[in-house]
Amino acid sequence: MNMQAIIKPLIQKNDTKIVMIVLDGVGGLPVNGKTELEAANTPNLDALAKESACGLHIPVAHGITPGSGPGHLGIFGYDPLECQIGRGILEALGLGMEVRKTDVAVRCNYATIKDGLITNRRAGRIPTDQSSKLTERLQKEIMKIDDAEFTFAPGMEHRFAVRMRFPDNLQPDAAMINDTDPQKEGKAPLPAAALSKNAERVSRIAEKLISRAHEILKGEEKANFILTRGFSNMPHIPNFDEAFGLNALAIATYPMYRGLAKLVGMETPSLEGSVEDEINFLKQKYNEYDFFFMHVKKVDSYGEDGNFEGKAERISEFDKLLPQVLELKPDVLVITGDHSTPAVMKGHSWHPVPVLIKSPYVLGRTSGAFSERECLKGEIGIVPALNIMPLALAHAGRLKKFGA
Amino acid sequence: MNMQAIIKPLIQKNDTKIVMIVLDGVGGLPVNGKTELEAANTPNLDALAKESACGLHIPVAHGITPGSGPGHLGIFGYDPLECQIGRGILEALGLGMEVRKTDVAVRCNYATIKDGLITNRRAGRIPTDQSSKLTERLQKEIMKIDDAEFTFAPGMEHRFAVRMRFPDNLQPDAAMINDTDPQKEGKAPLPAAALSKNAERVSRIAEKLISRAHEILKGEEKANFILTRGFSNMPHIPNFDEAFGLNALAIATYPMYRGLAKLVGMETPSLEGSVEDEINFLKQKYNEYDFFFMHVKKVDSYGEDGNFEGKAERISEFDKLLPQVLELKPDVLVITGDHSTPAVMKGHSWHPVPVLIKSPYVLGRTSGAFSERECLKGEIGIVPALNIMPLALAHAGRLKKFGA
Repeated sequence: MNMQAIIKPLIQKNDTKIVMIVLDGVGGLPVNGKTELEAANTPNLDALAKESACGLHIPVAHGITPGSGPGHLGIFGYDPLECQIGRGILEALGLGMEVRKTDVAVRCNYATIKDGLITNRRAGRIPTDQSSKLTERLQKEIMKIDDAEFTFAPGMEHRFAVRMRFPDNLQPDAAMINDTDPQKEGKAPLPAAALSKNAERVSRIAEKLISRAHEILKGEEKANFILTRGFSNMPHIPNFDEAFGLNALAIATYPMYRGLAKLVGMETPSLEGSVEDEINFLKQKYNEYDFFFMHVKKVDSYGEDGNFEGKAERISEFDKLLPQVLELKPDVLVITGDHSTPAVMKGHSWHPVPVLIKSPYVLGRTSGAFSERECLKGEIGIVPALNIMPLALAHAGRLKKFGA
Repeated sequence: MNMQAIIKPLIQKNDTKIVMIVLDGVGGLPVNGKTELEAANTPNLDALAKESACGLHIPVAHGITPGSGPGHLGIFGYDPLECQIGRGILEALGLGMEVRKTDVAVRCNYATIKDGLITNRRAGRIPTDQSSKLTERLQKEIMKIDDAEFTFAPGMEHRFAVRMRFPDNLQPDAAMINDTDPQKEGKAPLPAAALSKNAERVSRIAEKLISRAHEILKGEEKANFILTRGFSNMPHIPNFDEAFGLNALAIATYPMYRGLAKLVGMETPSLEGSVEDEINFLKQKYNEYDFFFMHVKKVDSYGEDGNFEGKAERISEFDKLLPQVLELKPDVLVITGDHSTPAVMKGHSWHPVPVLIKSPYVLGRTSGAFSERECLKGEIGIVPALNIMPLALAHAGRLKKFGA
């Protein structure tokens, strides 16, 4: 049964504050017997774990490695299997684009075409500074196709994203448009075919985009064509306020995570700087919101690079700053990750993610530290990620009794 | 949501090997404080558990005692509540019959009938050697009814199975045929009535089978009639290769377990001998497959007999052979059971079953031994059996990331 449907009638508002800190990719695996969390110097996190409810969460399902989208949706209380985010939308959000319900977004690659066949699907991974200039040129020359306004966002290397905005409020069925990337070199690009009636308008515009881009780029040695993947609309996701009765602020320095927070209806002001800057922003805005999602990116980045010590060091740095958060005395403090990124795997993984919930209403003294092994002993157990939000709401006194 | 539907789009193939060893009925309950696994001498299993991911699995649901069919389907990654195997099919498979998608199978009992009433539903449990001769006689005299070819397989005591094979490829709706066993003595046998239009053809043939068998057996003192139960077709189960991208070999000396493996599309060569013979076969075939299901039957048999020491002894014997499996260095090794068979209960039970997964990507050092109590401390937790296959695939690097 849908968790949000269960809790929605039980929501009650009050003055409590909930702070959720996401240490991106915090879960790890041992090197010389210790995981990144065990190797890090974390006296504050460990002391907190001792007096908190601890456990582990499964982001999507056992054995399933989540991308950043499903990883965050789960801890935000949405079932990542029901709310799937298209590649185009995620790319656009990741590049900091503002995307509305009626927009269509698509991820594009620069590619090399010769005699009608794709000879390089990534235009030889052209450098970002070169591809950015090409994207600017496309933007200048393609402002509109038919009645759709076009916005281009340059990405890394051969990547960029395109947003189409229509003058009406119809939502075209963008996910029903075929990817044009043939996935193998030596093949012709596929047509951006409409797989449903409602997608035909976008299909026609997409075909014009591709041929106009080729016209503009044809003099380029490598990047003389574009391939499109993941035409998509914004998913229909109930607003955070509507779902949980929470007025929420996202504190994140990376555009993708602000985009994900925006997707569920949080406020997402632009922000740059360090984790300390994020905490200062939290302090500054503390009286204005009920719920704060604070995202700590660098833990994941070092995990992705396979840098075990670097990842542990980022965790230790966060630990030093934790007392500043505790000084705010939030009614409920949740610390967790969106998924595991074990340095030994150099990437996201399926492993359960440590979680702690600090509130006056916990058992406590089950876990001796904030780590995978110690959280395994905790009172939360191993639970699907989407159970964390109902627990946070309960600890904040924001859920009424179910049944008489 | 259906687990196979989630993982199917994520499947990626590689060169890894997964070995799954099923110690049939391995879970137990304490006698003098120790379970069979705790009483057994298992230095190798215990050392392995220390460096593996450990946990317990629930074969079907809390409190539900599985038969061998659902027990195996769960650990093979199929939802045993969705894929139900008819009694006729299971009996036919158990007796080593080859059964095709378009066949119908039914389980039969010899019974005693007098003046139209069943006076003994099991023909006084006539000895196997006597019933086998009767079954041979039925086979000789009933080769065909209408256009259906008949094959009879003798079973234990009063039991046998019948397979009907049709010249066309229509699949009759066999499960919609009424059982003829009235379940109580002193009552008349029920008609093999068709409960759906599509079952009428099989119903007519079944009625002819019953009356011809009575004609042939009428001179017998006890076994002068047959009762039928569980008319069934092969269930529609996605092939193991299609579901998981695995080329799988079943190594099992008992026909029923080969039958269950065949049902999900594993290769199931005939094999006789000891557990050591099974391991030798595993070594011999190791380069030819991706996935190996090795079944160790005797652990369960002693449990069913209520022989606690015998069951523990079979576990100890397996432990001595385990290093031979470890020498193969499979990328992922899963050791578990299909259900519990506590000797004190002399039968299958609903209790969670210990499971360990050995791979380079585990936390480890959470469980000190391979036992019910120690696996409870493990990183897998208590999970539905059908989560084991996704975990095995993930540990083998055979599942892509979900979502971007």
